[in-house]
Amino acid sequence: MNGVGLICIKATNLSSPTASYLFCSYYRPYLLPQLLRCWWLTRFFCGVVCCVDYLPLKMAYAVLKRSSMMKSMIGESWRRFASVAVGSDLVAAAPNVSLQKARSWDEGVSSQFSTTPLSDIFKGKKVVIFGLPGAFTGVCTAQHVPSYKKNIDKFKAKGIDSVICVSVNDPYTMNGWAEKLEAKEAIEFYGDFDGKFHKSLDLELDLSAALLGHRSTRWSAFVEDGKIKALNVENVPSEFKVSGGEVILDQI
Amino acid sequence: MNGVGLICIKATNLSSPTASYLFCSYYRPYLLPQLLRCWWLTRFFCGVVCCVDYLPLKMAYAVLKRSSMMKSMIGESWRRFASVAVGSDLVAAAPNVSLQKARSWDEGVSSQFSTTPLSDIFKGKKVVIFGLPGAFTGVCTAQHVPSYKKNIDKFKAKGIDSVICVSVNDPYTMNGWAEKLEAKEAIEFYGDFDGKFHKSLDLELDLSAALLGHRSTRWSAFVEDGKIKALNVENVPSEFKVSGGEVILDQI
Repeated sequence: MNGVGLICIKATNLSSPTASYLFCSYYRPYLLPQLLRCWWLTRFFCGVVCCVDYLPLKMAYAVLKRSSMMKSMIGESWRRFASVAVGSDLVAAAPNVSLQKARSWDEGVSSQFSTTPLSDIFKGKKVVIFGLPGAFTGVCTAQHVPSYKKNIDKFKAKGIDSVICVSVNDPYTMNGWAEKLEAKEAIEFYGDFDGKFHKSLDLELDLSAALLGHRSTRWSAFVEDGKIKALNVENVPSEFKVSGGEVILDQI
Repeated sequence: MNGVGLICIKATNLSSPTASYLFCSYYRPYLLPQLLRCWWLTRFFCGVVCCVDYLPLKMAYAVLKRSSMMKSMIGESWRRFASVAVGSDLVAAAPNVSLQKARSWDEGVSSQFSTTPLSDIFKGKKVVIFGLPGAFTGVCTAQHVPSYKKNIDKFKAKGIDSVICVSVNDPYTMNGWAEKLEAKEAIEFYGDFDGKFHKSLDLELDLSAALLGHRSTRWSAFVEDGKIKALNVENVPSEFKVSGGEVILDQI
């Protein structure tokens, strides 16, 4: 079980005897137990999950070549898996992880480069949080942050204590970006400079091809007292279909 | 030879029989061959280098405790060592390394996320380049970039083709910062998003304590046709003594 293989979730709809692969993803085999435990899977497949096959990489490649349906499924679902799901405790999922509140360098020095534990952010609060690939990038700047900024009054009307934007950036870059977007009053910006938060949630992504390095996918969540009540993860970070402010407003 | 030890360069001045430690630095032993090969050492010590001692960490600690002279030497020189020096070929020192010209995300997409080989930047040109710990940080914003921006006419008058600022940041953040500094016309900004450039030059630095992660120290160089003619590296990144625009103007 060493190396990287293909984990396929084979599902059978009871009304149809035909087994079909509903979900597949390249995954490191040591994550298989974690995958099996994941409550989200059973929810996603509405009880039709029958078995999980681990295919070694070579065999997986042969299967992939034969199955165009599977190929398209990979495209659709490869980033839909996270280590957290609706019902998860976000604070417990990222133990000993802190975020860094966006601030100027001088504020960083005077704060002695302090960080904020996740419990301070989420415990006893209703929070909407969204994550994105990077400050000063395209969809993030033009659509993602604005979709929350313009709806801030509606979030407050629904009892949300804070709307948070987080990205794998340092807190000074996040501050510079927030100022440029004129969004600091509406939204709290946090850096995840070492990516530990997103790694813990299995939402990290290698975006070196876009000259960004290791960042995160695009996502949003409604979190009440640390518990995830709604979670939306874009299939690819360039998409902006499920993680915007309007979608999560309807989920609160 | 595993672990981290102290490498001491023991030098004897021919006019004086007393051997003295001129340079010492914590260094991973596997770098010893590289250190020995380094042309810079022989140049720096003007031919008085006699031997290089590797001291295991425990012994090194005892030596350090005994020798206040060595302690002060470490303070003075711990970051003065880089894998390049005056006379080095900067392009050859970082083979297969490219930088990423600062640009907006849309320009990044339309350029197909292209990068710039070092040879395109340095070959056949007179270049002043300076590196710093991070966009949107303190000394970098308030002093380092401005010291080059305000002297740009003097650099041009001395025949410099380009003044370049480089940092371990993505090119979109560098662009956002350059726009905020209103310095894009005077200075060319480049990202070193994966830190490969600074790693190659042994100028990288872990600044996680300042919530920045792996970045670079603060430095400047005058480079003619790829060859380093002057190199200035601050002892600590918070200092701004040798890497400013005024200092390197006098070195051209």
